[in-house]
Amino acid sequence: MPDPLTIAIDAMGGDRGPEVVVPGADLALERHPDIRLLLFGDQAKLEPVLAGFPRVREKSQVVHADVAISMEEKPSQALRRGRNVSSMWAAIEAVKDQRADVVVSAGNTGALMAMAKVILKTMPGISRPAIAGFWPTLRGDSIVLDLGATIGADADQLFDFAVMGEAMARCMLGVERPTVGLLNVGIEEMKGVEEVREAGRRLREAKLPIEYCGFVEGDDLGKGTVDVFVIEGFTGNIALKAAEGTVRQLTTYLRDAMNRSLLTRIGYLLSRGAFAALKARLDPRTKNGGVLLGLNGIVVKSHGGTDAIGFAAAIDVAVETTRNNLIEKIAADLTAKYNAAQADDSSALNAEGV
Amino acid sequence: MPDPLTIAIDAMGGDRGPEVVVPGADLALERHPDIRLLLFGDQAKLEPVLAGFPRVREKSQVVHADVAISMEEKPSQALRRGRNVSSMWAAIEAVKDQRADVVVSAGNTGALMAMAKVILKTMPGISRPAIAGFWPTLRGDSIVLDLGATIGADADQLFDFAVMGEAMARCMLGVERPTVGLLNVGIEEMKGVEEVREAGRRLREAKLPIEYCGFVEGDDLGKGTVDVFVIEGFTGNIALKAAEGTVRQLTTYLRDAMNRSLLTRIGYLLSRGAFAALKARLDPRTKNGGVLLGLNGIVVKSHGGTDAIGFAAAIDVAVETTRNNLIEKIAADLTAKYNAAQADDSSALNAEGV
Repeated sequence: MPDPLTIAIDAMGGDRGPEVVVPGADLALERHPDIRLLLFGDQAKLEPVLAGFPRVREKSQVVHADVAISMEEKPSQALRRGRNVSSMWAAIEAVKDQRADVVVSAGNTGALMAMAKVILKTMPGISRPAIAGFWPTLRGDSIVLDLGATIGADADQLFDFAVMGEAMARCMLGVERPTVGLLNVGIEEMKGVEEVREAGRRLREAKLPIEYCGFVEGDDLGKGTVDVFVIEGFTGNIALKAAEGTVRQLTTYLRDAMNRSLLTRIGYLLSRGAFAALKARLDPRTKNGGVLLGLNGIVVKSHGGTDAIGFAAAIDVAVETTRNNLIEKIAADLTAKYNAAQADDSSALNAEGV
Repeated sequence: MPDPLTIAIDAMGGDRGPEVVVPGADLALERHPDIRLLLFGDQAKLEPVLAGFPRVREKSQVVHADVAISMEEKPSQALRRGRNVSSMWAAIEAVKDQRADVVVSAGNTGALMAMAKVILKTMPGISRPAIAGFWPTLRGDSIVLDLGATIGADADQLFDFAVMGEAMARCMLGVERPTVGLLNVGIEEMKGVEEVREAGRRLREAKLPIEYCGFVEGDDLGKGTVDVFVIEGFTGNIALKAAEGTVRQLTTYLRDAMNRSLLTRIGYLLSRGAFAALKARLDPRTKNGGVLLGLNGIVVKSHGGTDAIGFAAAIDVAVETTRNNLIEKIAADLTAKYNAAQADDSSALNAEGV
């Protein structure tokens, strides 16, 4: 690993590329003055923006890449067109080659997933990666995965999501023994799809130090009933966006309500502090940065439409996951899982008198 | 059909049974003085409550039932123990025997689904019923189904959900040509699971008067992008509860924010009107009443934990769906679907020169 901590950044990613990435990097460097950046992108577009941010200029090395992956490209097309030559590809490759510790991109999620899988490969025993994100709850943040990296997950994959999410919770939430729940349509053992029930049985019986709490329901997300919510990617993605949509809806209702009359507008002025606090709490930018888990390297995905504040938050996630050795923690847990499974197999053989 | 409109009510259903059902019925009779009620339940428990509500007494006939299904019973157990003798069973049977036009229950959802399927049977061509509910959006109400009646749905079932939901939107939203969308993880045609993609292809090609708008995402729910959102029950249930949880979470944040200081509390007092309006808008009781679709009869499911106001809203749904001939509309649409499919088959045969 390079020293100091080095972050590879896909400077062309996101709706606005360098215009958001560079000021975002500047904010992040204010908080983490000891990190270094590798900025991958079109030098002709990057340099003029960098000229306005001397701190980023000083702490970065620009690596030119000819191609920028667009937000609309299909993963297969992005792979064809962007292999070796795109800023996204080159940034991920820097992690593989150990020139960087971690990579951050606000680019096309599908393309990022596809390239990360090709370049970094999945960890031993992991067939499909997951995107884990932070979910603000009444009890503080929880981690939810999969938010849509892959569609459909069998019991074994859900089990692995639990293992990886638990490791991430230890790294990022400051909880020593994070609690883990499987999202389902009810809390009774017989509820839901077979994959979820089977994953539940395995987690209950697993000889791993995982604090498995059983099934949880959709409304447990807001309550923060557990630290780690495990769900298959299709449902995870729709639930996340349904909740985000609800936040926007209520914010609109609230604004309408406060504009109703002179009295409510005066009330609003007096309560400005309260609304500012509320707004800060709901600010999606502070929770920006999903982590692709299950790969031999950390890939942080920022929202494509975020601004500098949001992009800086994604860099924060990159710094914290790396400093807290997320990959090593996950690898250790997966090894423990396979050792436990092997021990089970041999004790089963012993029981059979073999 | 009996005249006047007759509603069968499972008076023992819900967390508090007659104590909520009877006052709820009273509120509903205030709005619909021309309906009649059949109240199924334990006469010894019902009569004392009815004594306090002369209007309900006058408009109702009490039908004694020995057994009340508990909220915790498994569907199989409820069927065994409650067949013929429970208030839930008897109330549903009244619809089958045409003694009532529609049935309302706040009881155990799984038991209600199971009994309704056994007694009313699914409509021709429908293999599995769905629960359709109202989703308040920025554009007014939309209808979402399935909210968890059945787990997993193939393309044909999703198609039928679209047909049934569209008919319900015409009945309940006052929209002549409701728009229909399939919930997915992206709007591009190649996104998501195969069942959803295939349902999309069929809806696009269907020779039915359905305004199919393609895929929609989780955050379209809050925006009300379409009138009818179609989704498989596992994901539908988790998305609904995630959104409900988010509403509770934000309400808590808002309350905390307004209690921050003397100034914000004064602001709150001045803005009381605004908060009352907001609260009314978020009141889950006004949207109470999911409809089980796909059966030969309308079954309205009220939340088990609701109060009289909520139960009255479920009766409203029963009145409106019946007055607007929901079942007849769905039956006509399903017939049109099968006629179109048959026409397709014969034109395919013609094309093959048969």
